[in-house]
Amino acid sequence: MRADAKKNYDHLLAVARAVVQEQGADASLRDIARRADVGLGTLYRHFPTREALLEVLLRSSLDEMTAQAAALETSNAPDEALVTWLREAVAFTKNYHGVTQLLAAALDDPQSALHASCVTVRSAGARLLSRAQAKGKARRDLNGEELFALIAALAWLGDQPSLGRHADHLFEIIASAIRR
Amino acid sequence: MRADAKKNYDHLLAVARAVVQEQGADASLRDIARRADVGLGTLYRHFPTREALLEVLLRSSLDEMTAQAAALETSNAPDEALVTWLREAVAFTKNYHGVTQLLAAALDDPQSALHASCVTVRSAGARLLSRAQAKGKARRDLNGEELFALIAALAWLGDQPSLGRHADHLFEIIASAIRR
Repeated sequence: MRADAKKNYDHLLAVARAVVQEQGADASLRDIARRADVGLGTLYRHFPTREALLEVLLRSSLDEMTAQAAALETSNAPDEALVTWLREAVAFTKNYHGVTQLLAAALDDPQSALHASCVTVRSAGARLLSRAQAKGKARRDLNGEELFALIAALAWLGDQPSLGRHADHLFEIIASAIRR
Repeated sequence: MRADAKKNYDHLLAVARAVVQEQGADASLRDIARRADVGLGTLYRHFPTREALLEVLLRSSLDEMTAQAAALETSNAPDEALVTWLREAVAFTKNYHGVTQLLAAALDDPQSALHASCVTVRSAGARLLSRAQAKGKARRDLNGEELFALIAALAWLGDQPSLGRHADHLFEIIASAIRR
């Protein structure tokens, strides 16, 4: 990418990040293009789908969650490690209203630009769960897919204006149900 | 209401129920009016808000949940009674895609036509919870508002195409966390 093209791309991405943080995962692509002062065609040339845009916006956070899970795999307290990671995973979604539904849908859609990242994150969490289960520190009747679904449900809860205040305590209750 | 007015009202309501079951709680009011062959003005005269329409559609189900909770209050196994009721409450939302968010929002909005019914249902569940807690059969660090939030989160989960298959098992895990 030429230097000026790179500058334009970075500007577009910074605007997109701001609009998505304001409006959530279903932000208006038209608003993003207008505020970045580019045509909608230019936006679509860089990001053919909403998922493609969100994949770039979320990539570093999703990578970080995977890396954090890997680091926690060396912990001597596998149940603590699991709960710490779950807490981070739920917290991550707080920055992007409505992102949970999109990530959940991406898991089932290999065509989605977000699919690979989501699968990687889910596998990282599943490994932490398996490790805690192997040491007898987490209930055995739970698998990685269900763990991801629990994270999604807790994230959704935190995102609801009338229910969000209960999310932290319910996290602790659910975490206590997972630990053995 | 005159007999022909009553017939028109009942027809409008039957159409509304069908459209809401098809499209969910954010169904198009315009579609409902068109399919019932009435003007949008007529629809709004009967139901000034979406909540007013849903209140009429959901009233009998919400009343039934309250009545069922009252019946279960006489059970000798208060933990079984609580879990049975929770299961019914989650199942109820399956008929109406997206209704959970609306009910949760109505709890915080005394102006909503759904507010009174939601508060009544939540109180009915809270009484079952208190009873189980009093007999040492449910964890004490949970209150009626949090119980409602858990129902909402499980209902949301069941409503997600990519996560719904996990809802029943996660219900059992959460129920086991509530019981003592």
